[in-house]
Amino acid sequence: MALSYKKSGVDIKAASLAKKRIKALASSTFNPQVLSEIGSFGGFFNLNREFKNPVLVSSVDGVGTKLKVAFLANKHDSIGEDLVNHCVNDILVHGARPLFFLDYIATGKLSPSTVSQIVKGIASACQKVNCALIGGETAQMPEFYQKNEYDLAGFIVGAVEKSKIIDGKEIKPGDQILGLASNGLHTNGYSLARKVFFEKAGWKIARYVPELKGILKDELLKVHRCYFNSITRILENYQVKGMAHITGGGIGGNLVRILPQNRVAQIYTESWRKPKIFGLIQKLGKVSNSEMYKVFNMGIGMTVVVKNKDLTPIMRDLSLLGETVLHIGEVKSGSKRVNLVSR
Amino acid sequence: MALSYKKSGVDIKAASLAKKRIKALASSTFNPQVLSEIGSFGGFFNLNREFKNPVLVSSVDGVGTKLKVAFLANKHDSIGEDLVNHCVNDILVHGARPLFFLDYIATGKLSPSTVSQIVKGIASACQKVNCALIGGETAQMPEFYQKNEYDLAGFIVGAVEKSKIIDGKEIKPGDQILGLASNGLHTNGYSLARKVFFEKAGWKIARYVPELKGILKDELLKVHRCYFNSITRILENYQVKGMAHITGGGIGGNLVRILPQNRVAQIYTESWRKPKIFGLIQKLGKVSNSEMYKVFNMGIGMTVVVKNKDLTPIMRDLSLLGETVLHIGEVKSGSKRVNLVSR
Repeated sequence: MALSYKKSGVDIKAASLAKKRIKALASSTFNPQVLSEIGSFGGFFNLNREFKNPVLVSSVDGVGTKLKVAFLANKHDSIGEDLVNHCVNDILVHGARPLFFLDYIATGKLSPSTVSQIVKGIASACQKVNCALIGGETAQMPEFYQKNEYDLAGFIVGAVEKSKIIDGKEIKPGDQILGLASNGLHTNGYSLARKVFFEKAGWKIARYVPELKGILKDELLKVHRCYFNSITRILENYQVKGMAHITGGGIGGNLVRILPQNRVAQIYTESWRKPKIFGLIQKLGKVSNSEMYKVFNMGIGMTVVVKNKDLTPIMRDLSLLGETVLHIGEVKSGSKRVNLVSR
Repeated sequence: MALSYKKSGVDIKAASLAKKRIKALASSTFNPQVLSEIGSFGGFFNLNREFKNPVLVSSVDGVGTKLKVAFLANKHDSIGEDLVNHCVNDILVHGARPLFFLDYIATGKLSPSTVSQIVKGIASACQKVNCALIGGETAQMPEFYQKNEYDLAGFIVGAVEKSKIIDGKEIKPGDQILGLASNGLHTNGYSLARKVFFEKAGWKIARYVPELKGILKDELLKVHRCYFNSITRILENYQVKGMAHITGGGIGGNLVRILPQNRVAQIYTESWRKPKIFGLIQKLGKVSNSEMYKVFNMGIGMTVVVKNKDLTPIMRDLSLLGETVLHIGEVKSGSKRVNLVSR
């Protein structure tokens, strides 16, 4: 038998079809700074003169095993939003605004319709923050992925004026810590959550869960919240000392990354109401309290450190901008760490 | 039984160990333009004043199922070089030089030693082209990947002075086409190559192959050649009309991407000697000639379109720079296409 690429599992026709759809979706995110269309070897982005000393801030992320929930639910149009929002938040904490995004989709057998759903989500989230989707790779990797499964990674480049980089260096005792409510699990802790719900409890994804007042899959696929549009408004009017995007590692593991030496972030864990999903996971999985705080965001998707005097006006402004904002802690002196205390 | 993240398959300790090793490797690639160490939420790169009108050129790529060969051979220290070199060549064709790189490694169960071998390759290739490895994501995704397997993607950002973008627009009849020799399969066609060698022929990866004068795995893991250091020297002294990095789609599928309307690239396929590996695949797999040219680079890793008058000096300079350079075709008028002709 004569062999060909198609017989070895790589379908160039499906790839072309997917590419065509991706191209249309991607161009919906273009702005005048994008100099080329997808299809040449690289994506072109013209860094215009708005920055005097531009520092490029970049990040790469996946959405982890939240993908497995998307597979189970056969819903692929929101996972791209999770991916983009995660990346946008990661560079936002440094004061950067997104410029452009590239995605990587790897799959065993390529389904143009699944790929275009994924990219639809990516493009939609990019549009909302004026970020151009200027490139991507859709890899067909026979024997790597299970049927109807794929992996997904995203890469963002943003920019910040050098003098305006936010890095936590100015954090001082007496500064106050705000938390912006998350939208559920966001994109972290899904390996544990899936184990709890689908293995230990033996629940089906379509189960109605009274505690959640909804269907399990809807809760688990809630989109990772993007804080860009509200936070940038705050940055225009106030000094923000530091921000931490709460992802894997939880509040403790992430907030500590921006603390200077000799600063303690004291977080009062009773100061906000935890979304029901976390209590449910903890109860069903008999997960320890400290483990819960290490793995999950526990209802806080972003922490913002501000001057004491700015606390009230910033909270008011963020509320007006549509955020649920909580005063969750304060900065003290002491050897660098995050203290989670229940007072 | 109480559940924890570790019991759900995510090992935070292994992740921390891997991160530590990655950090050390990554910092070996840093230059004064890198403003932060890996570990904050984003990688910082200071775009300094060397560019008047910088255009950022970016690309994302994987290494496809060449990874399966790395798994079989249990050799993980060169696959990162493949990844970086692929990305560097992709932006090089537009005249861009690499600024920074980020990687994405996804695996079922994280092995810090495998991850550090992968990143060692990435860092080593980055160093050679003065590209900073400023970020990455190592994702633990239980139930996604088979034991001891992983996926790998890379993102590169480079820059080119706006007036110096190379895009093929100036390609005219009479221009000459050079080919720079590849180093074997590079990173394309591995699904077919593996099918031929391991399934159809039933060969083992450690087999000595007389036609190749070597072991099969050594041939299949040869590193994707990086053309950056030689091509940039040429760009300093000559006008290059267009370049195409020969990857999936072969010479035809890639060279056509840079042709203007009404230009034909005439490639004389008898004008260079094909590396033995391609003849072997074709013979063992009974692969058609046209399929071979669509799937593989057939010995040409980069094509360069130059003015007729520059042909001889550029060929001489590229040879002196260590490239095996071949005169493989010329540009004619006619409706946009690549003609592969055996004369």
